[in-house]
Amino acid sequence: MATIKVHGHHLSTATRLVLCCLEEKQVDYELVVVDLAAGAHKKPQYLALSPFGVVPTIQDGDLTLFESRAIVKYLAKKYKGQGTELFGNSLSEEALVEQWCEVEGQSYNSPASAILFQILFVPMRGGTTDEAVVEMNVEKLVKVLDIYEERLSKSKYLAGDFFSLADLQHLPTTHYLVTACGKGDLISSRKHVKAWWEDISCRPAWKKVSEKSS
Amino acid sequence: MATIKVHGHHLSTATRLVLCCLEEKQVDYELVVVDLAAGAHKKPQYLALSPFGVVPTIQDGDLTLFESRAIVKYLAKKYKGQGTELFGNSLSEEALVEQWCEVEGQSYNSPASAILFQILFVPMRGGTTDEAVVEMNVEKLVKVLDIYEERLSKSKYLAGDFFSLADLQHLPTTHYLVTACGKGDLISSRKHVKAWWEDISCRPAWKKVSEKSS
Repeated sequence: MATIKVHGHHLSTATRLVLCCLEEKQVDYELVVVDLAAGAHKKPQYLALSPFGVVPTIQDGDLTLFESRAIVKYLAKKYKGQGTELFGNSLSEEALVEQWCEVEGQSYNSPASAILFQILFVPMRGGTTDEAVVEMNVEKLVKVLDIYEERLSKSKYLAGDFFSLADLQHLPTTHYLVTACGKGDLISSRKHVKAWWEDISCRPAWKKVSEKSS
Repeated sequence: MATIKVHGHHLSTATRLVLCCLEEKQVDYELVVVDLAAGAHKKPQYLALSPFGVVPTIQDGDLTLFESRAIVKYLAKKYKGQGTELFGNSLSEEALVEQWCEVEGQSYNSPASAILFQILFVPMRGGTTDEAVVEMNVEKLVKVLDIYEERLSKSKYLAGDFFSLADLQHLPTTHYLVTACGKGDLISSRKHVKAWWEDISCRPAWKKVSEKSS
């Protein structure tokens, strides 16, 4: 079987999500670097693979797939029984994994990414961080994390007492929030969120992905 | 087996998504109306079911599930082989369904919902529509729909030549855009998007859901 190709960039959060999933599933892959700084993701060659012009996109035999959250679900299903099970072990567990994946995609990611954008990317492009935008998004994230704190007081991980895609999806953005944006207090000030973060961010798969080029 | 309870409201887009899925799958359900105007979704009784305080939430035996996009995936899997198949018929088809579901959740829904909010809900609450916000979101939606037009020139539905959750997820917001926001030209000006919309919006399941109380 041909090796899965991941077109992406090692510093992109969405690429890291897919790479971490591949590591958890113990699947070989080849990272084909898309030169984001040179705008390669907006050029015809890449747009033919991925019309929205965002990384990553995978190629697995005849299948070309973009949208990182869809890719990790595909990988979790295709490699069921290999590496870490990431989707629970019953229809109900799978439903709860999907639920908390949606919470990440709909409620956590937007404020977390907005903070990353303002603190990391705006200065990188020569601009000035808009502190009011940061503050507004911190307030949104606080509300989400308060709900996580309550949830994680009842189960070790988001979907239950098992690590899953729902937890995995939080690693890339939260890692930058904590290590590069000075927002670690959002995590460490909440007892159960802190314990959860310490647990999931120490997993070998994530350490391998996050320690490369960062 | 107990009937599935859907806590929601017949005019809410997310509730309609779940109801339409239940109709497509030919599953009996009971709609338990959450009085949104009275703020019932922010009161302790509802928050105990659904901590983010949004509709809908389903109860299916012991399972309580919120996040409409997670609910429809659960229903599509649980009732595989009954009613309309909504997840394709192979791992690759399922992956493409997931991909276009993510496109809806990450790229289509945000501008579409922002337009609905400005044109429908702001005046309902006594405010004035911010036309600049509408225009900015129309521009975002135009870019997404141009990609849909290209995609739908190659396959009848988003994930392939089969109707799926990916199409279903577009019904509730697009219906209001076309019927209540005066934005039908976004759809009708694109040949393949128009044909797709005429097809999916005429499905009996959607007609049944959208014609109630609207």
